[in-house]
Amino acid sequence: MKKLINNPRAVVDESVEGFGMAHADLVDVHPDPKFVVRKGAPVKGKVALVSGGGSGHEPLHAGFVGLGMLDAAVPGAVFTSPTPDQIIPATTAVDSGAGVVHIVKNYTGDVLNFETAAEMAQAEGVAVRSVLVNDDVAVEDSLYTAGRRGVGGTVLVEKIAGAAAERGDDLDAVAAIAERVVANVRTMGVALSGCTVPHAGTPSFELADDEIEIGIGIHGEPGRHKIAMEPADAITDRLLEPVLEDLSIASGDKVLLFVNGMGGTPLSELYIVYRRAAQVLAERGATVERSLVGNYVTSLEMQGCSVSVLRLDDELTTLWDAPVHTAALRWGV
Amino acid sequence: MKKLINNPRAVVDESVEGFGMAHADLVDVHPDPKFVVRKGAPVKGKVALVSGGGSGHEPLHAGFVGLGMLDAAVPGAVFTSPTPDQIIPATTAVDSGAGVVHIVKNYTGDVLNFETAAEMAQAEGVAVRSVLVNDDVAVEDSLYTAGRRGVGGTVLVEKIAGAAAERGDDLDAVAAIAERVVANVRTMGVALSGCTVPHAGTPSFELADDEIEIGIGIHGEPGRHKIAMEPADAITDRLLEPVLEDLSIASGDKVLLFVNGMGGTPLSELYIVYRRAAQVLAERGATVERSLVGNYVTSLEMQGCSVSVLRLDDELTTLWDAPVHTAALRWGV
Repeated sequence: MKKLINNPRAVVDESVEGFGMAHADLVDVHPDPKFVVRKGAPVKGKVALVSGGGSGHEPLHAGFVGLGMLDAAVPGAVFTSPTPDQIIPATTAVDSGAGVVHIVKNYTGDVLNFETAAEMAQAEGVAVRSVLVNDDVAVEDSLYTAGRRGVGGTVLVEKIAGAAAERGDDLDAVAAIAERVVANVRTMGVALSGCTVPHAGTPSFELADDEIEIGIGIHGEPGRHKIAMEPADAITDRLLEPVLEDLSIASGDKVLLFVNGMGGTPLSELYIVYRRAAQVLAERGATVERSLVGNYVTSLEMQGCSVSVLRLDDELTTLWDAPVHTAALRWGV
Repeated sequence: MKKLINNPRAVVDESVEGFGMAHADLVDVHPDPKFVVRKGAPVKGKVALVSGGGSGHEPLHAGFVGLGMLDAAVPGAVFTSPTPDQIIPATTAVDSGAGVVHIVKNYTGDVLNFETAAEMAQAEGVAVRSVLVNDDVAVEDSLYTAGRRGVGGTVLVEKIAGAAAERGDDLDAVAAIAERVVANVRTMGVALSGCTVPHAGTPSFELADDEIEIGIGIHGEPGRHKIAMEPADAITDRLLEPVLEDLSIASGDKVLLFVNGMGGTPLSELYIVYRRAAQVLAERGATVERSLVGNYVTSLEMQGCSVSVLRLDDELTTLWDAPVHTAALRWGV
C-alpha cells in the first residue's frame, strides 16, 4: 500500500484538518466530535441540510458544505458510518429554528445512526426530516444495505435541496424537493480496480488484469457480476441501460447526465464515457439539459466510474442552476 | 492495461468530442485540425490566450477554455506536442486584432512547434507573444526539456494572464503579467506509481511496492531520485523545501498554495499534503492567502502530487480572484 498519508489511523483527522485549512473562508471544522459546518451557520431563518457518511468518498460530503448546498457534513472513519455522537451536535449547531433535513445514503449503519441522531436532536427541540438516497440500480440488497444503495445521485440531491433551502423553502418543502430528486435519479457504476482502506492495508477486493466489476458499490462491495474487459462504449451501455429502464426515460424527457469518477480514473476517460452516454440519450430522443463530469463521489483510488441520470423539470433545473459556493462545486458566486 | 477507452488510437478524438458535448455552452471543438475554442471567440478588442500541449494532463488545457482564462487550447496526442498545423488555425481563429499570447510549457517539442506556429501566424498578420512556463525546480534538464519543465504552475499562469486579458490589458501587458506569474511560481512533484500511455499499452516506468520518485515530471520522465516510501509529511517537506528555497520565500510573504493531484490519488490525500505544506509556510512566517487543491495538471492515472507556491502581490491576487468560467475552474459567474 502506497498512499500519501502519515498514520493510517489519522487519515481522516489529518485530511479534514487540511480541508479546513484550505477552505477556511467556507467552513469551520469541529475536531471532536468531528464535523464540518458552513461558516456563519446557523443561517438565520434558513432550513439547514446535514449529510454525512463514511470517509473515502471525497469530495463528498465536506466538499459540498457552503452556500446553496450543505450546512454540515459528518465524516465517519473510512467506509464507516459516522456516529450519533457526531451527527447530533452537527444537527443542533446548524439549526436556526427552521429545522434540519438529514440526507442519508442508504446503508444500514448510516440509516441507524442518523435515525438515532434525529430522535435525539428532536428531543432537544430540533425539527428533523430525513431523506434516504437510494439511486443505485445495480443491486436490490447488498452487504451493507437493505434495499438500493445511495451513490452518485447524492450530489444532485444535496445541490438541488440546498438551493431550495437557500431560496427560503420551509422544512417540508425542502424535504419534498429532496425526495423529488431521489425519485428521479438513478445510477450504476463500474470498477476497473479495487481500492485499499488505509487501516486495512490491503485491497478490499481484487480484479484480474482483464476483468471489471459491473454494478460496483462505492465501498468496493460486490456489484452485479464480473465480466471480461470491454470497450468503453460497451461498458457505458451496460451502465446506462438499466438506469434509463428504471427511470422509463422516453423521447422528450429532459435530463441531467452525470459521469462520476471513482477516484483513480483520468478525466479524459470520463469524457469518453460521457460521449457515449450522451449519444444514447440523443438516440432515445431525450435532451441532455445539464451535465456534470468529474470526481464527486469517489472510492479512494478506485478506477472506474458511475453514470447517473436525473430527470429534470423546470423547477429542478432552476434549483440546479442556482448559485453554489462550496469547495468542490461552485458557480454564480 | 485497463482503461475506459475504445480504440487506443482514438482516445484524444473521443475524449475531446465528449468534452465538447458536455460543455457546449462554453466551447466549440474543431475536429480537424483539432483545437478547442471559447464560444463566441474572437472576443472583440480582447487579447487572446492560446495554450496547448500533449494530451493526458486533463483538465489542462481544454478544461481552462472560457471567460477569464484561455481562448483556445490545442491538444496533441497523449504526451506528444501539438503540431503547428493545429496551433496556427487556433491562433488565427481567436485573434480579434488585439493579438495573441501563447502560453507554452517548456518541452522541446512544444517550444519548437509553438515557435513555428507563432512565426506563421505573424506572417498572416497576427501579433503573437510567447510566454514560456518553466516552474519545475526538480531538474535542470530532462529527457524532453532544455532547462526547467513547465508543470503545475501553468494553471496559475493561464488563470491570472486570462484575467488580465479579460479586464482589457493590451498584448504587452498580458504577456508581462504572464511572465510575472512565471517568475514567481515554483513546483515540485512526486510519483507513487507510473502511468500507461494508451497506444503504448505498458507503463512508462515502474516503481517497486515501497518506492516513490521525487521530482517526477508530468510524463513519467525521471525526476531527481527514487527513494523508499515515506510518510506524507516527510514527502511534502521534500517537495516544498526546494520550492521555497528557489523562490526565497521569507517571513511576511503572501502566497498561493497549490496542491495538485497527478490523476490517481484520492483528494483526501491531497489535503493531508496541503495540511503539512500550510504548516511549513506558517512556520516560515508566510501567509497562505489563496489555495487550490485538486486534479488540475495530471499524468493520466498516475498516483502522486505536486506542490506549487506562487508569491502573490496585490495585483496578482486581484487577477486570481477575478471571475472565471471554464469546465474545470469557475467562480464569480
